[in-house]
Amino acid sequence: MSLLVVGSIALDTIETPFGRADMVAGGSAVYISAAASYFTAPIRLVGVVGDDFPKSELEYLKSRGVDLEGLQVVKGGKTFHWSGRYHYDLNQRDTLDTQLNVFEKFDPVIPASYRKSRYVLLGNIDPVLQRRVIESLDAKPDLVICDTMNFWIEGKRDELLKTLKVVDVIIVNDSEARLLSSEPNLVKAAKKIMMMGPRVVIIKKGEHGALLFTSDTVFSAPAFPLEFIYDPTGAGDTFAGGFIGHIVRTEDVSDENLKRAVIYGSVLASFSVARFGIEALKELSDIEIMGRYRDFIDLSRFEE
Amino acid sequence: MSLLVVGSIALDTIETPFGRADMVAGGSAVYISAAASYFTAPIRLVGVVGDDFPKSELEYLKSRGVDLEGLQVVKGGKTFHWSGRYHYDLNQRDTLDTQLNVFEKFDPVIPASYRKSRYVLLGNIDPVLQRRVIESLDAKPDLVICDTMNFWIEGKRDELLKTLKVVDVIIVNDSEARLLSSEPNLVKAAKKIMMMGPRVVIIKKGEHGALLFTSDTVFSAPAFPLEFIYDPTGAGDTFAGGFIGHIVRTEDVSDENLKRAVIYGSVLASFSVARFGIEALKELSDIEIMGRYRDFIDLSRFEE
Repeated sequence: MSLLVVGSIALDTIETPFGRADMVAGGSAVYISAAASYFTAPIRLVGVVGDDFPKSELEYLKSRGVDLEGLQVVKGGKTFHWSGRYHYDLNQRDTLDTQLNVFEKFDPVIPASYRKSRYVLLGNIDPVLQRRVIESLDAKPDLVICDTMNFWIEGKRDELLKTLKVVDVIIVNDSEARLLSSEPNLVKAAKKIMMMGPRVVIIKKGEHGALLFTSDTVFSAPAFPLEFIYDPTGAGDTFAGGFIGHIVRTEDVSDENLKRAVIYGSVLASFSVARFGIEALKELSDIEIMGRYRDFIDLSRFEE
Repeated sequence: MSLLVVGSIALDTIETPFGRADMVAGGSAVYISAAASYFTAPIRLVGVVGDDFPKSELEYLKSRGVDLEGLQVVKGGKTFHWSGRYHYDLNQRDTLDTQLNVFEKFDPVIPASYRKSRYVLLGNIDPVLQRRVIESLDAKPDLVICDTMNFWIEGKRDELLKTLKVVDVIIVNDSEARLLSSEPNLVKAAKKIMMMGPRVVIIKKGEHGALLFTSDTVFSAPAFPLEFIYDPTGAGDTFAGGFIGHIVRTEDVSDENLKRAVIYGSVLASFSVARFGIEALKELSDIEIMGRYRDFIDLSRFEE
């Protein structure tokens, strides 16, 4: 039960048609850890912040069982900042500002106490750094999951392909899957990506759910039909956090359990988008999670 | 077991990245009837063609148990013609040509022998004509289903709203649902549309499946992850045909059976898009349909 999470830590300013949040805690490592904390502890976090990052948010993470030994705090530095505005239908957003700040020179140093981690979730960072994390470990983990994005697929393709060779599960959205594989059809895209290394490909389709591909199975998970979506920021990372959380909790990487993990990822993401930033993730209960898991089952179940 | 289908009958010219089909039989009534014919007979068709419409296609429909008493053949007239070209990813298409021809003055006259039909599927035609069809019947049918499109939602909104008051099930795609309800969120959109009359709202999401809403249930049906899609033309009408076909076969309009009907609609649509026009629908077997139905179940099923 040892999960290593590496990714960005940010202060986000988010505008949606429903409101605005200024300089709130975000970044892939934060969403992943907050979501996974409902399933497992400790979570070994590796990331970097400036000394402007609120202590209260670090305390929150600690209270959720997140080990901060791998957190680098740069004295006098500023935390990575992202600012964006969502359109009316929430499917499109404009990035208004990106300030990499201390994240620009992020070098994920893995503390000795983290090096036997059996589960690794590599958030969306430079594929060179993702690979370095894996290489710093004492032993091959049971499962390595990575996320990536268009910026790396286009800009560091060769490095990304090297990283994918040592990754078990890749989680991407549909446009990233198409770009990575040069294939518009998602089934073919998933097959091509499996040839690159990962034995499991998960394609997130936002409000349309997610697809899980392994050599033996295809699984389609619905998205929860929500009436109120306030802020889609971090939904994909939250999904990844719920997904890995369930796997670590159960120590089971079978196809059947991966399906359940996809549903738990979807459950956590469905809560996350109902409030701004990580607000909703801070206040969940196990009962709510189990209830929504049942709702997800009902959503696609029918008597044959 | 009496199904009345009213809609367009067309000769389509279709270009996709994978090929081209010239002046092939199409139109909503043809796709609906071809799909529904795997579940029920006779199918009472009302539509109009010119005398250029191939006799072989009419023979095909007859061979599938389609009653052509309600088919109007206009001597010297030309059949409705649509021509379109699909983009590389098949989600977008350009209409290259539309010639309404005999369809322009289509007046759906319901033969006396059709007037006791218990199930009615109104394809996408003028809402005034849809309502006239319902009013021509001797008794209130068990289930009236209608399709519509942006053209009527924007151009004949008041007439459409009158028609919706006497409709049980509306089948629309996601953009039509948003336009009809002025609501981007599909859950809210479905609720608003239910307030307009239909007790069941089905929202088709193309390659992302379909959602079924009733007052008591929300059901999410996946789309089948196909590796080869050659021609999406008629997929929505094929869905409607499989949907109503299963309902007529089982004479069961319960929520639970509507869910199964959504899956059968999805099954038929998944076959249809794998060939041009109605080619695939012409050659299906019950075994293939049952097999794909099982595949659909497996696609979203997991051990809890």
